[in-house]
Amino acid sequence: MTHSPVSVALIQSPCSEDIESNIENTTNLIRQAAEQGANIIVLQELFAWPYFCREIDDRYFDWAEPVPGPTTRRLEKPAADLQVVIVASLFEKRNPGIYHNTCAVIDADGTYLGKYRKMHIPEDPGFHEKYYFTPGDLGYRTFDTRFGRIGILICWDQWFPEAARITAMMGARLLIYPTAIASLPEEAGETALRYRNAWQTIQRSHGVANGCYVASTNRVGNESQLAFWGHSFISGPFGEILAEGGLDEQIVMSDIDLSSLDRHRTTWPFFRDRRPDSYNAIRSMWLDDENG
Amino acid sequence: MTHSPVSVALIQSPCSEDIESNIENTTNLIRQAAEQGANIIVLQELFAWPYFCREIDDRYFDWAEPVPGPTTRRLEKPAADLQVVIVASLFEKRNPGIYHNTCAVIDADGTYLGKYRKMHIPEDPGFHEKYYFTPGDLGYRTFDTRFGRIGILICWDQWFPEAARITAMMGARLLIYPTAIASLPEEAGETALRYRNAWQTIQRSHGVANGCYVASTNRVGNESQLAFWGHSFISGPFGEILAEGGLDEQIVMSDIDLSSLDRHRTTWPFFRDRRPDSYNAIRSMWLDDENG
Repeated sequence: MTHSPVSVALIQSPCSEDIESNIENTTNLIRQAAEQGANIIVLQELFAWPYFCREIDDRYFDWAEPVPGPTTRRLEKPAADLQVVIVASLFEKRNPGIYHNTCAVIDADGTYLGKYRKMHIPEDPGFHEKYYFTPGDLGYRTFDTRFGRIGILICWDQWFPEAARITAMMGARLLIYPTAIASLPEEAGETALRYRNAWQTIQRSHGVANGCYVASTNRVGNESQLAFWGHSFISGPFGEILAEGGLDEQIVMSDIDLSSLDRHRTTWPFFRDRRPDSYNAIRSMWLDDENG
Repeated sequence: MTHSPVSVALIQSPCSEDIESNIENTTNLIRQAAEQGANIIVLQELFAWPYFCREIDDRYFDWAEPVPGPTTRRLEKPAADLQVVIVASLFEKRNPGIYHNTCAVIDADGTYLGKYRKMHIPEDPGFHEKYYFTPGDLGYRTFDTRFGRIGILICWDQWFPEAARITAMMGARLLIYPTAIASLPEEAGETALRYRNAWQTIQRSHGVANGCYVASTNRVGNESQLAFWGHSFISGPFGEILAEGGLDEQIVMSDIDLSSLDRHRTTWPFFRDRRPDSYNAIRSMWLDDENG
């Protein structure tokens, strides 16, 4: 199971209304990443589409598709040809009236391994995901790929330590977050930087708490009022940044050594000392209801 | 309940074998902090003693005392005189054979408000706490002080997002971590810096995940093989550092605005979107037992 080192590539790119062109561009970038030695390639959230959740419009449901379905089938051949694992975030149509924000994993021989459905769904100005996506009902998932066991979470999930913890306890040594996060026009300058730092801090911390690597791919470019801030990154078990992108279309790559985590977790033995007997309250929504 | 702004002071200092002198020095620093306008003063972990856990020796049990007890009584008068909340980490003797790493909270009128017993206990080279301390059995605790509701956790607790989450859900708007963390001689230079960054990252992340302020006091100075790295800090709900100490004896201070967290938590509405229905597995020790 331990393949060492593993080369992880994150593909961050802008998206247009032309879905076919988004998929072709991404497929070209997958080929480039493989030529550069990538083993695991992570696409950004909803990689084939513009970030349609920026507005509420039910025509966008027409873009959804089954998972597995046409897009996963299109990715199976490059995965097999290039011998790379592909992590692909998709707009899933489960049935009329139930749609999910879903991520599929395709192994390096082209086999579809399964999917994870985003558990935590945002709803904020410019991010109307509760309109489009039913919260996931598959729970947390790991996938045994050719290059090791990976855990998939999606964007908003990144703010919830519970999701990272459970996925890590299922044996994931790499936590992957396909993401679409952007600044609004009123959040320029220092505010935008403060948000981006918080976004990196919380994800880097999941690597610290869980003795894991973390890989987060975020899209770039402007879509209507949203300025996607890119800065896809790979971090290690100390929360240290191993590779980081900028604001442009880019392949962000780093080698990671999953086997090193055995020793890391005895040097920093947090899992030894957890107190599950004291964590029952985590299952509450809130514990201080004095305000009603 | 919301007093705004609140001035938080962290007292980081070296400790000697002379307990009386440690307490006197700390009391002088408490007076200085109060003169500078502090409302809440946080002492470092086991502030009255050298960090005796660096070695295993049962003579050190003689230093333990009841909580409340002689040291909390000594702190009640300065708290009342100076109108400051004092957070004091102590070596608690509960009865012969049961000792705890405990933190007492004294309100700004000198009232003893209660105690928290460290839940997560380390045991590593130079940190033999499992020899001295029975893990806490009081669960997580918050304290309604004159200046707002605070949550107390202690040192090793800082690596466990579960502890921060539960304490925040109990209504704490400021998470406080009295700490004694040090480098070993073989961890100099870049390794020490990587560790210190990880230590700050994980604590700053608790502020991000929970929309809280965080205050962490760490001792300074060398004790036998241990080089305590100081760098006590106060951070905000974006994980941003508001004040940070160096390697010397120092009072680290910042104003914080606890009332600002109401708006913060609707702008970044993570608590709205938690999925307690999916967190049951947090109560497991591990979820992937394929290795036996």
